Amino acid sequence: MSADLYAQVQQFYARQMGLIDDGHPDAWADTFTEDAVFAEASRLKEPLRGREVIRASCRERQRRLDAEGIDFRHWLGMLDVRPQPDGSLRTRAYALAMRTPRGGALEIFASVVCHDHLVAGDGGWRVRSRDLTHDGAGHDERAGESA
Amino acid sequence: MSADLYAQVQQFYARQMGLIDDGHPDAWADTFTEDAVFAEASRLKEPLRGREVIRASCRERQRRLDAEGIDFRHWLGMLDVRPQPDGSLRTRAYALAMRTPRGGALEIFASVVCHDHLVAGDGGWRVRSRDLTHDGAGHDERAGESA
Amino acid sequence: MSADLYAQVQQFYARQMGLIDDGHPDAWADTFTEDAVFAEASRLKEPLRGREVIRASCRERQRRLDAEGIDFRHWLGMLDVRPQPDGSLRTRAYALAMRTPRGGALEIFASVVCHDHLVAGDGGWRVRSRDLTHDGAGHDERAGESA
Repeated sequence: MSADLYAQVQQFYARQMGLIDDGHPDAWADTFTEDAVFAEASRLKEPLRGREVIRASCRERQRRLDAEGIDFRHWLGMLDVRPQPDGSLRTRAYALAMRTPRGGALEIFASVVCHDHLVAGDGGWRVRSRDLTHDGAGHDERAGESA
Repeated sequence: MSADLYAQVQQFYARQMGLIDDGHPDAWADTFTEDAVFAEASRLKEPLRGREVIRASCRERQRRLDAEGIDFRHWLGMLDVRPQPDGSLRTRAYALAMRTPRGGALEIFASVVCHDHLVAGDGGWRVRSRDLTHDGAGHDERAGESA
Repeated sequence: MSADLYAQVQQFYARQMGLIDDGHPDAWADTFTEDAVFAEASRLKEPLRGREVIRASCRERQRRLDAEGIDFRHWLGMLDVRPQPDGSLRTRAYALAMRTPRGGALEIFASVVCHDHLVAGDGGWRVRSRDLTHDGAGHDERAGESA
């Protein structure tokens, strides 16, 4: 894996999470492919299927955060990038989910493992699939790793 | 943006924050330009203007931490680097502020967004301006982004 | 320091910590050299000496975590890499130690500074020595820095 690729993906995540954390659900949704699948077993009974479903979910989420006056941060790190034979990328990262209410205290409330499948798109990488596994959920991470 | 530049800036922040966290306020202050401006609306009524003002503030801060026996860490991540036409860099990063008193428990007490303007100086990058925005302060991040 | 090297070391840590956090103590131990030394003054009276001693300690640790149903994460960041004249690397990183019990809340319980000595081995970098210093332990970080 080249340093260029690793830096690109780090910067991609910084910007992608910046979009959702700064309250731009539409621009954030545009970083997914049209047929993207977003899975988060701890929170969603079924994965979200398709960019427009992901967009609608993110807009609704933003309305709730705005109404509650909460600053939310998605912090990714410990990034592993594995280039695939077809030019796409499989990535794994740790993520911390944190929120601060207006005038209140920071709460870092979840440690999450993020497995993404990234494909090249217009102007950069796009997420084709994202699978979020929350620590403490009784998951079998080893199964996830073999996928 | 090149991978070289991204790695340089990551390493710059690791070392810069290492200096302040290890109790070297003078070496830390030397990573700012002589005319640097340091803004932190949640904590400072007015920005600190000039390296020597920043240095004096940091020395005073270190005396308080030493007196209280506190280990402090500034943890930056989610770095976005945007090279400017004049060769300088605009960066954005997330930061966590945390402290551990001697014999006590870790407290991660603030999530902060850091916008820096970096310029090339003797032996590396220097901070010409830093703007720290604390989550929960009722800021308008979108305004910050357009700056 | 080259961007290639910095990316390599970032990815090394993501994978190494992934191994221990996913419950693979043997594969994790194999990332140390045969004569590796693992020091953690806050937790170990004496450093662990040798890969097999490190392996046995990690297996025992994993048995305890499995019995207690705890997801554990080692999150490294703020990486500084200093290549040495002999081709080995001295690294410094911040680390957060966190755990989530099955069905329970995330607890980020320690901020740690990690000093490693990495040497090239079969198929990648290997840790020859690791020194972990917990914040709040009354350490003299400046002494550590001069080592």
